[in-house]
Amino acid sequence: VRENDWLRQAARLFGSRHQGVPVGVGDDCAVLSPAGELLISTDTVVAGVHFDLSLMDHRDAGWRALAVALSDLAACGADPQRPVAALVSAQLPADLNDENLLALADGLGQCAQAHSCAIVGGDTVSTPGPLALTLTVLGYAERAVLRRGARPGDLLAVSGPLGSAGAGLFALRAGFAAPEYDDCRRAYRRPQALLAAGHVLARTATAMMDLSDGLLMDLDRLCAASGVGANIELNGLPLTDAAREIFNRLGHDPAVTAATCGDDYQLLVALHPTSLEAMHAELPGLTVVGHIVEGDAVHVLHDGRPVEIARRGYEHGKENETS
Amino acid sequence: VRENDWLRQAARLFGSRHQGVPVGVGDDCAVLSPAGELLISTDTVVAGVHFDLSLMDHRDAGWRALAVALSDLAACGADPQRPVAALVSAQLPADLNDENLLALADGLGQCAQAHSCAIVGGDTVSTPGPLALTLTVLGYAERAVLRRGARPGDLLAVSGPLGSAGAGLFALRAGFAAPEYDDCRRAYRRPQALLAAGHVLARTATAMMDLSDGLLMDLDRLCAASGVGANIELNGLPLTDAAREIFNRLGHDPAVTAATCGDDYQLLVALHPTSLEAMHAELPGLTVVGHIVEGDAVHVLHDGRPVEIARRGYEHGKENETS
Repeated sequence: VRENDWLRQAARLFGSRHQGVPVGVGDDCAVLSPAGELLISTDTVVAGVHFDLSLMDHRDAGWRALAVALSDLAACGADPQRPVAALVSAQLPADLNDENLLALADGLGQCAQAHSCAIVGGDTVSTPGPLALTLTVLGYAERAVLRRGARPGDLLAVSGPLGSAGAGLFALRAGFAAPEYDDCRRAYRRPQALLAAGHVLARTATAMMDLSDGLLMDLDRLCAASGVGANIELNGLPLTDAAREIFNRLGHDPAVTAATCGDDYQLLVALHPTSLEAMHAELPGLTVVGHIVEGDAVHVLHDGRPVEIARRGYEHGKENETS
Repeated sequence: VRENDWLRQAARLFGSRHQGVPVGVGDDCAVLSPAGELLISTDTVVAGVHFDLSLMDHRDAGWRALAVALSDLAACGADPQRPVAALVSAQLPADLNDENLLALADGLGQCAQAHSCAIVGGDTVSTPGPLALTLTVLGYAERAVLRRGARPGDLLAVSGPLGSAGAGLFALRAGFAAPEYDDCRRAYRRPQALLAAGHVLARTATAMMDLSDGLLMDLDRLCAASGVGANIELNGLPLTDAAREIFNRLGHDPAVTAATCGDDYQLLVALHPTSLEAMHAELPGLTVVGHIVEGDAVHVLHDGRPVEIARRGYEHGKENETS
């Protein structure tokens, strides 16, 4: 058994059918019933593996850990008007000083406030290892939207620009200090969980997920969960001018890079063509990037020509994302 | 700010009042409403800090991590007839081999099955640090019982024998291999979450918690949360013959040791004297160990005489237990 599918394999040992659990291991969120559609998800980040304290401060790290977890609720269509809650499990190394401890909490609190999320508990332990945070988040939805459910003929759309966080990371690493790159740096350090957009999209989406590891890698997952294929046109991907400029300065193809760099936390949605207009009216940033086809292959086109892209995305030590 | 109250202090930064969250940071479980009384709790264990792989195998470690988390649901009176669910976040070091990875999952699955718990998701990441597991558990209760609520005049009772897990740990360390100590070793390696007992006790309990860090330390917490004091008689503590024998062989006072060693996961409950008989009829192991008094001091008596016990319990690197 490989680490990267340990939990999925382990799920068989856990027992797969449980009353009151329509969706368990395998999607962005687990869904529990009765008691309405309760959405719950957990995400662990480890310093040096998932975030780099030389490129962000502890306040950013706290914000980011929670936002990344909340993004899974957005991906399932959680209703931001209903309670959204989080639990924080923190593993603290002995050399973490008080100032940074407080900054970590402050970042978590800022992010919670920005997303109207209640932090309702957690656990703090010491560790001989690196700083690590596990965020467990809960929310409620009228209708949970999963990765499965996309059908041939559906359009594929993303909720907003791709590549901004990746461009921000590149700018930080390259030392590009220009203020016009602030939005990219911020996209990397302080991602937003798109709860409002996810709730709107959930009204008509046939499948949805958040983009954590790059469009191509995550699209592979959505297609696999839905049992479909997809055609995608890189030339149609939405990028901000700043992201495009950063990629160009570094000699990277902007569209390919935007499709394969992670950490954007935009939503990827499959929807029937008839619902596009209504969705677009409420979410002007919604951009069609391709469509669902029969089969199981994801075909990537660049200016209409098929391209092969071996590296589909970026997993930065996160072997397996299950719920 | 000290690590051991980081999360509690941080709760102020998180914002303390949220609609739909009657109980957040600070108890065994957080309680969310509406959608009934949803109980949720999280617990992290780190190898070398909270469990010792030289004294148990990976199967035991998996079982124990989940049982310890589920015990918090028992402590709040979760209904074992309603859905009980868990999420597993695993941080896996590179040198963890496939056999042990599977054993870990198997132990989690065995424990889940024994407690009719659905494992509904999680997250697997690699870490340069030690093996660590964060278990988040959910359940439902008609009425959540908290640490607060004990009143002067209430009796204090425990759901069963104390010190068995501690005695098991001592036996393992000392190499006492006698088969009559099997139950003690098992109490240490494979604790049970007392969901059925907790649900019965929740009908009349004024306050309840599970004993993870030793009776005296945990009683201090229950009294602090309730704003009361307590008198406790060490001579009345229930111990098994095997635990008593192990403590005696090592020259430890059995009652003092049983009151201060952790990992038992029995329930500590405060209840009005009039409800004792009904509870005892359903839970024959329920044993009165003291009573609640006015004030804020916990007085420990040994054969009726006050004793001072400086070391109240055992925290093995777990600085803070919040929900």
